[in-house]
Amino acid sequence: MQIAIMGYGVVGTGVAEVICTHAEGLKKRAQEEIEIKYILDIREFPDSPLADKFTKSFDDIINDDEVKVVVEVMGGLTPAFDYVKRCLESGKSVVTSNKELVAAKGAELLKIALEKNVNFLFEASVGGGIPIIRPISQCLAANEVDEIIGILNGTTNFILTKMIREQMNFQDALSLAQSLGYAERNPAADVEGGDTCRKICILASLTFGKHVYPETVYTEGITNITLEDVEYAAAFGSVIKLIGRVKMLDNGKMDIVTAPMLISRDSQLASVDDVFNGIMVRGDATGDVLFYGKGAGKLPTASAVVADVIDCVKHQHARKYLFWADGKPEDVLPFGESFTRLYVRCESDNKEQAFKDSENALTHIKRIYRDGEEDKEFAFVTCEDSYKNLLKSIASLEEKGVTVLSKIRIASL
Amino acid sequence: MQIAIMGYGVVGTGVAEVICTHAEGLKKRAQEEIEIKYILDIREFPDSPLADKFTKSFDDIINDDEVKVVVEVMGGLTPAFDYVKRCLESGKSVVTSNKELVAAKGAELLKIALEKNVNFLFEASVGGGIPIIRPISQCLAANEVDEIIGILNGTTNFILTKMIREQMNFQDALSLAQSLGYAERNPAADVEGGDTCRKICILASLTFGKHVYPETVYTEGITNITLEDVEYAAAFGSVIKLIGRVKMLDNGKMDIVTAPMLISRDSQLASVDDVFNGIMVRGDATGDVLFYGKGAGKLPTASAVVADVIDCVKHQHARKYLFWADGKPEDVLPFGESFTRLYVRCESDNKEQAFKDSENALTHIKRIYRDGEEDKEFAFVTCEDSYKNLLKSIASLEEKGVTVLSKIRIASL
Repeated sequence: MQIAIMGYGVVGTGVAEVICTHAEGLKKRAQEEIEIKYILDIREFPDSPLADKFTKSFDDIINDDEVKVVVEVMGGLTPAFDYVKRCLESGKSVVTSNKELVAAKGAELLKIALEKNVNFLFEASVGGGIPIIRPISQCLAANEVDEIIGILNGTTNFILTKMIREQMNFQDALSLAQSLGYAERNPAADVEGGDTCRKICILASLTFGKHVYPETVYTEGITNITLEDVEYAAAFGSVIKLIGRVKMLDNGKMDIVTAPMLISRDSQLASVDDVFNGIMVRGDATGDVLFYGKGAGKLPTASAVVADVIDCVKHQHARKYLFWADGKPEDVLPFGESFTRLYVRCESDNKEQAFKDSENALTHIKRIYRDGEEDKEFAFVTCEDSYKNLLKSIASLEEKGVTVLSKIRIASL
Repeated sequence: MQIAIMGYGVVGTGVAEVICTHAEGLKKRAQEEIEIKYILDIREFPDSPLADKFTKSFDDIINDDEVKVVVEVMGGLTPAFDYVKRCLESGKSVVTSNKELVAAKGAELLKIALEKNVNFLFEASVGGGIPIIRPISQCLAANEVDEIIGILNGTTNFILTKMIREQMNFQDALSLAQSLGYAERNPAADVEGGDTCRKICILASLTFGKHVYPETVYTEGITNITLEDVEYAAAFGSVIKLIGRVKMLDNGKMDIVTAPMLISRDSQLASVDDVFNGIMVRGDATGDVLFYGKGAGKLPTASAVVADVIDCVKHQHARKYLFWADGKPEDVLPFGESFTRLYVRCESDNKEQAFKDSENALTHIKRIYRDGEEDKEFAFVTCEDSYKNLLKSIASLEEKGVTVLSKIRIASL
């Protein structure tokens, strides 16, 4: 079977490496040799042992009927979307690791794949080398999955782990992540939550059968998390993690959010540290199942891509387990209506009075303390209420002159 | 699609329950209705809503060409093996949760299934509701898996968790597990390691492609673990877990063992507690991937069985990803040649001299201490050596009058 790889960046080189170094094993598993016919990249790689495979022209790929499977690892929407769409329309299966593409255009591309009876597979788009797309769709087929809660971004998890374990502040931890190559020079997509949001959208779409678009999902990153928050969380028996979560409500709407949350140390998710990802799938029959591993990186991601390629080679017609329909904004619960508890950290010149005001504004709060608490500083956790109501109460508190420094969700697990 | 269920015990009732309560979702996923035509059991269930499905005769099932998929959840080898074999030979697919059957007869049954071009699936035989068989065989297809390390038995993990967290002794923890229904009245298969051994044999066979028979695997249970051992392990930064482990060596032999081991608290496996299972799969490309969830129980196990049934309905011909050949005892490394470190606890009237003797007998040992150490008691950890050599050194120590109370492997992670 001849394949093409579009994009020769980190993942693309990994895919080529896995295909070349594991050739024998892959042949056994795919029951056919997998041969790279083209690598599309605008750059030149004259010294690569694969130098003769490179092309700068997408036409070479799209016009070659021998190419049955195309790997898209360029990233971004342009020109990836156009290329992938044309590949599917011309009857080629496509494997991608591009979460932006799947989160923005999944329903449309899956529909074309189904019509053309080819595959559009994207195991690598969530969780890197952790098998998650296929287990959710296949293995849990006999379950009603109610909820998915995941630590889906390794970069932010690394930063938070450094803050929790080594009392490094956000900026220093980010710089360290950048110097180790875990974070991009422009870290916005990671630290502002966009990457996590795309991944939880993909998992939600797959699990509940309707496309959830990232722009309909409330998304909050970790840039405002401070060491004080980390300490109060510890005093509350929790750690702060950036979480993507989706829950199906009885009214048929999805309660979906990307935000930092306090995770109880009793939860298996609390011990998912460093660059690792952990994805908790809650089914009515299985209970909680957690998938844990490296969520990114060249070889883990490449191995997930190549596993999908093998699947395409073995099943050349559309795998019907992997499908979702288009979705509407109304499928998603407005974020203000989502119920949660909050941890709140405040500052006031008269903090005892301010805490009393807080008790009046938000009934049933519980004060928490940290070692070395500042004179003006206090913190508490609220009961569960709609986010809208909680924000309103907090606003009324601010009107009384209390400065609210942080408010972070507490995950109900 | 008409199916039959053989055995109406815990898992069998769960399978019927999942099929009845999730009928609509299953129909959508299987793209066909799944209908229970027969339930085989020697007992009668006149009050069951499924009363008209019951039969005491296997002939009803084997002679009915409308039954395309047979679920075997009787357990044991007799008559399960005979029935399953005849079902496969007559062109019916079989789904089983029976780890004893798969561990003893997997290669033979897979061969028949392949010849008859039908499925023999057993996702539920390992890890209950945790997807593991399919992820290992499919999602990790582009990986060389080097090693699998698992906490595969919920009963023993519950007992050890009680010993670690609540200082309950083994016997009390076992009684509690029995009273909660987690342990059988005859707990031998769990506490003596047989259940774990079967499961690691199945995972080893699947991963490395050759059938590993349980009787060729060194198997040690947890009946001799004491609270003193638990405390020394804690002092060493570890917890004791019953582990099934298999590693492929460069010489092509499998280093496979079932035994209690000291697991460093730094490992994700250390926090797999209570009745949960955790299975760590180490691949050359993915790194460590951990699968975590309830490893047993009616509904988790039943949901895994039903997911396999759906797979059979959708793919009526043999899934070629799931296959291993027959194996020979020589595929397995003799257990004495396996390398490990040991934790050793001893007793002696002259313990300082005895520790010196230990240092001479086993070079490079490191003494460890616990709070409330008894006068005669001492403990140490060894360097890595072959198990055979370690046993020899320990025997020489016993010849010098030192009583060796415990010796437990230290997992290299």
